[in-house]
Amino acid sequence: MLYLFQGARITGGSLNISRLICSSAMLNAPTVAVVLSGSGVYDGSEVHEAAATLAGITRGGAEVQCYAPDIAQLHVVDHTKGAPANGETRNAMVEAARIARGNIKPLSELNSSSADAVIFPGGFGAAKNLSDFAVKGADMAVSEDAVRVLTDFHSAKKPIGLCCIAPILAAKVLGSHNISITLGKTDDGSGKWPYAASITAAKAMGADVVEKAVDEVLVDEKNKVVTTPAFMYEGKFHEIHDGVGKMVAAVLALLK
Amino acid sequence: MLYLFQGARITGGSLNISRLICSSAMLNAPTVAVVLSGSGVYDGSEVHEAAATLAGITRGGAEVQCYAPDIAQLHVVDHTKGAPANGETRNAMVEAARIARGNIKPLSELNSSSADAVIFPGGFGAAKNLSDFAVKGADMAVSEDAVRVLTDFHSAKKPIGLCCIAPILAAKVLGSHNISITLGKTDDGSGKWPYAASITAAKAMGADVVEKAVDEVLVDEKNKVVTTPAFMYEGKFHEIHDGVGKMVAAVLALLK
Repeated sequence: MLYLFQGARITGGSLNISRLICSSAMLNAPTVAVVLSGSGVYDGSEVHEAAATLAGITRGGAEVQCYAPDIAQLHVVDHTKGAPANGETRNAMVEAARIARGNIKPLSELNSSSADAVIFPGGFGAAKNLSDFAVKGADMAVSEDAVRVLTDFHSAKKPIGLCCIAPILAAKVLGSHNISITLGKTDDGSGKWPYAASITAAKAMGADVVEKAVDEVLVDEKNKVVTTPAFMYEGKFHEIHDGVGKMVAAVLALLK
Repeated sequence: MLYLFQGARITGGSLNISRLICSSAMLNAPTVAVVLSGSGVYDGSEVHEAAATLAGITRGGAEVQCYAPDIAQLHVVDHTKGAPANGETRNAMVEAARIARGNIKPLSELNSSSADAVIFPGGFGAAKNLSDFAVKGADMAVSEDAVRVLTDFHSAKKPIGLCCIAPILAAKVLGSHNISITLGKTDDGSGKWPYAASITAAKAMGADVVEKAVDEVLVDEKNKVVTTPAFMYEGKFHEIHDGVGKMVAAVLALLK
């Protein structure tokens, strides 16, 4: 009780309840681990999904800790051309530190005792640096550290949030647990769902794949897995930001 | 009138007004130019400020067009160490394309006929690649293209938004117009305002510098210059996101 009350003050003769609640919440703030994989949609973490994830976490009163694999990226893509830059190598964690403002740890240090939940933003980094889905499709392998983290948080019954292409990681690693995920929608001819082939791949891995719009979230309560399409949809920046914000809020709600 | 009505439909015998309004708004959507300067707080555009700017623009119903200088960055900083990476060079526009998802143009192509307003997010790129403030302080020079863009939009009476350290550019270029800007607050001993020395420099350039909190925006109606502290304050991610969102909304409000 000492800790609960140390932030309380007597103001004008009465207990300042707002300070009390604030202090209590801060003392109990959950920590959410965010797994990045570089910085930039075509070879790393999608910048806007990652930013929306971090803003959503602090908005929900939780603390952020970023992680990324301390490995060379599969590619360095010149984002003005959408093509690999010849002869250049970059480290996924060093680049992800641009999103994390320097506050980042190697993914090898993350386990389910490090945080109350874990979130994987999307971007091709999830399909190039956390797995080889971008190269091998349905035959992909997930990196050893990402397999370990997903298995560990799932076993510990701690929530896992993923968006964009990142749910393919959960499909591969947790497919045998009948998990439900969304990867957006199948191509409806609008040109707004260019990555719909990933849905077929995820189904082949054993996942139940549910179609959702960019402003929707799928919550698999049994497995505590929360997913949203994000930039699987060719949407506007605020649409992606808001969808990711809903995913983060749903992850935090599972902690209550 | 043809254009105004081409999206309207007769539904169940009555005019579908929501479609009508939507079409009209889309036809009249303003374009906001965003001037980036790399990707990453220590050598380019601050990622979260840039993301919040783009989300704020589309949330307000406007179109985004990103620009950046097509030049070598002053530094490439390893963001895990906060120190320059030896022997590495990167192009500010190519790196900024990571935030722009590839949709970016050289800053040399931007002028006041290209867009209805212009916004400069912060990050050290504003002080390293758009000016040399990071090296020379109050004796800084602003890059030729940034001087031209700021002068051009100001002369055309088109709104200019800036956040974090970027208002120092406006102080230097437009200081003789008695502009009012904010760069946050002077150091109050909390350690939350580490860059307060920039306030002294901006005053020396002739700007009226007004102290504002991270959730506040300063609107100089006469000069149509809108500023907010953003990461001049050591705040949480959603605090910065929301402050930048208010700045963007105030810029868009000046278009009405």
